[in-house]
Amino acid sequence: MRAYQELSKAELLSLKEELEKAYEEEKGKGLKLDMSRGKPSVAQLDMVMDIFNVLNSDSDMTSTEGVDVRNYGVLDGLIEAKHMMADIMGISADHVIIYGNASLNIMYDAVSSAMTHGVMGCTPWCKLDQVKFLCPVPGYDRHFSITQHFGIEMIPVPMTPQGPDMDMVEQLVAEDESIKGIWCVPKYSNPQGYTYSDETVRRFANLKPAAKDFRIFWDNAYAVHHLYDEEEHQDKVLEILSECEKAGNPDMVYEFASTSKVSFSGAGVAAIASSKGNLDCIRKTLTIQTIGYDKINQLRHVRYFKNFDGIKAHMRKHAALMRPKFEAVLNSLQRELAGTGIGEWTNPNGGYFISFESMEGCAKAIVAKCKEAGVTLTGAGATYPYGRDPRDSNIRIAPTYPTPEELAQATDLFVLCVKLVSVEKLLAQMG
Amino acid sequence: MRAYQELSKAELLSLKEELEKAYEEEKGKGLKLDMSRGKPSVAQLDMVMDIFNVLNSDSDMTSTEGVDVRNYGVLDGLIEAKHMMADIMGISADHVIIYGNASLNIMYDAVSSAMTHGVMGCTPWCKLDQVKFLCPVPGYDRHFSITQHFGIEMIPVPMTPQGPDMDMVEQLVAEDESIKGIWCVPKYSNPQGYTYSDETVRRFANLKPAAKDFRIFWDNAYAVHHLYDEEEHQDKVLEILSECEKAGNPDMVYEFASTSKVSFSGAGVAAIASSKGNLDCIRKTLTIQTIGYDKINQLRHVRYFKNFDGIKAHMRKHAALMRPKFEAVLNSLQRELAGTGIGEWTNPNGGYFISFESMEGCAKAIVAKCKEAGVTLTGAGATYPYGRDPRDSNIRIAPTYPTPEELAQATDLFVLCVKLVSVEKLLAQMG
Repeated sequence: MRAYQELSKAELLSLKEELEKAYEEEKGKGLKLDMSRGKPSVAQLDMVMDIFNVLNSDSDMTSTEGVDVRNYGVLDGLIEAKHMMADIMGISADHVIIYGNASLNIMYDAVSSAMTHGVMGCTPWCKLDQVKFLCPVPGYDRHFSITQHFGIEMIPVPMTPQGPDMDMVEQLVAEDESIKGIWCVPKYSNPQGYTYSDETVRRFANLKPAAKDFRIFWDNAYAVHHLYDEEEHQDKVLEILSECEKAGNPDMVYEFASTSKVSFSGAGVAAIASSKGNLDCIRKTLTIQTIGYDKINQLRHVRYFKNFDGIKAHMRKHAALMRPKFEAVLNSLQRELAGTGIGEWTNPNGGYFISFESMEGCAKAIVAKCKEAGVTLTGAGATYPYGRDPRDSNIRIAPTYPTPEELAQATDLFVLCVKLVSVEKLLAQMG
Repeated sequence: MRAYQELSKAELLSLKEELEKAYEEEKGKGLKLDMSRGKPSVAQLDMVMDIFNVLNSDSDMTSTEGVDVRNYGVLDGLIEAKHMMADIMGISADHVIIYGNASLNIMYDAVSSAMTHGVMGCTPWCKLDQVKFLCPVPGYDRHFSITQHFGIEMIPVPMTPQGPDMDMVEQLVAEDESIKGIWCVPKYSNPQGYTYSDETVRRFANLKPAAKDFRIFWDNAYAVHHLYDEEEHQDKVLEILSECEKAGNPDMVYEFASTSKVSFSGAGVAAIASSKGNLDCIRKTLTIQTIGYDKINQLRHVRYFKNFDGIKAHMRKHAALMRPKFEAVLNSLQRELAGTGIGEWTNPNGGYFISFESMEGCAKAIVAKCKEAGVTLTGAGATYPYGRDPRDSNIRIAPTYPTPEELAQATDLFVLCVKLVSVEKLLAQMG
């Protein structure tokens, strides 16, 4: 296929006419699809329905440690739930505290508590003139929303297929004491599906931050969310807690994980993992904040999945559903856009997203055009702090929720919008 | 029975010897009872086990508004869950936001968010030199722990059988802009079981606080927790939201409620109720804080209890279990201590506690003596801010968890310890 940039004005005009006609046809179809968030599909959720049979009116409601899970008690989670979440993160259970139904809330609480009470004895962030976070971009909009909510200044750091630009990270944290954290999705990153290389993880573990209370917010959201069963197509990420320990930085990481995209979104089990020092500090706050989280749901999850093999087997079933969806999108992008010079995209082995880079200055227009024809994508800019994508080029594609048929329609429309907006852009540049 | 204060030294000495012998016998029994918290009994929890049968692998997981409760979406709760919690509080569902598994966490979040972001546009409390809360005493230790955690200065306000001393409340909030809140348990108060009179509620609604961001933290924890079925033995509390509206103070109250002591402690459904102004402000934070709370558990509760009649019928079964326990304690106190001048106690129509007042300076010693013989009570002082009971006289009795047999043993021991410590005190006063 010829690059659009090489087309003459006449060719572009004729192409534009053709694309506009096709777009009007698409609009006529009355599509109504929401691809704005990384949502599990109905078929994925249906797969977990047996979880409601593991507890019934005759069930023994006692945990392995003899706790009646229906009553008060146990602040930081059932030991069997800690093991479950520890296995997902590849660590030992004593590094884990179980929280409520979603990890986003843990991250929010971690930042909130750092604001009001500080981190492990350091000055509360709300008492400081300036607090900054590093934000690998493009990244996860809900991370950025938390730091923005607390008035924390966000500094974008470019992502590479190996992870954030570590030269920049190392330099910034070493020289600026007001940098207190960095948002990371180390495995199958949101939105690119990149996985941090071993070198990146080791460089993280060996950071020499000026701030004693600098913390890596390690959102391991897609730890077991592979798209392929073959080991060679499954990304692996070095275990960060032990790397930090080895590097003499045991307290530098908060790791987060949940079963939101394993069991149910919003009704799963979430956890934080960290050093004893951090966990003790967190537990002190938890004693005030809660009488403990939902132990019944913890027990339900453990009895359903049984062990890590159970989770892995379950995730292979998810993969079987999701693989064709990702492939449908990727095939269509490849077929329609390869060589056109108007778009690039990632090709992830797992996670929930594909990241698309349009020509500069086209993302907002593409998303708007899709919306006009009935397909809602994540808002352009959302993958950047403050919603500001300086190149206006990144679009997050979330292929998980629609059915394969819907996805084919949606991708056809997307590709069409990319072409149309790009042609318009090129024509505008010609003047 | 003669008042102990009228006994001669010789009589007291002989009584002391007798009581000490009895105490040694009690110690020999090897009791091991924890009455420190207001915990539902195993029998109460067993009554709810059918809740695990309402959802199974074939269940329709769609809410009345057509939401798949297993997926993301619905920030502030299912409408049917709002109705359930609204009925418990005697208000309309549009005043309600559903949260997670316990109301304590909502109160914590409300204070935390006021610290970092302020209340409805007012200055964040963390930016103020001083923030104070009024604390009716004796009161609930976990309330006081939250305000203490955030460095909020706590001012004790004496409780009366009609509620807090409203002369004092009115005067303090009117003259001191740094007073930002008051902790209230309006119905079957913790620990006395008092219910605020209509006049008290109206005086609350008509407060003229100097601080625009003054909020009444109205913890309606025992809204449906009667001990008696007869209407005339059920306390009623005026509905505060509408009283505040009538008084032109619509935004002055945060009300909290949960099913922690209806269904399961730590696995129930919790809610906040307030004005549209407050709820809009809370929702803005919630959008950042969470992807939404556990809608499956909300659905499970609604389908199990069906409606408010279902909840009331369920609570009558609780009452049937709890009444004999409260009566066992009260009868024993009456039989052993009436007329002795060494103790007074409340006689509640509901809630989870009985409040006991020993002679001044005896509470700590009584609790210690009970503990030494195997019965753990709530720590003396816990019912006061900073754990400081200035008279060292208040003890919270939590009769709900033990079996009736255990309770009889525990109360025998308690009464014995009250007598023994009082005799020792009187002898010490004689010199």
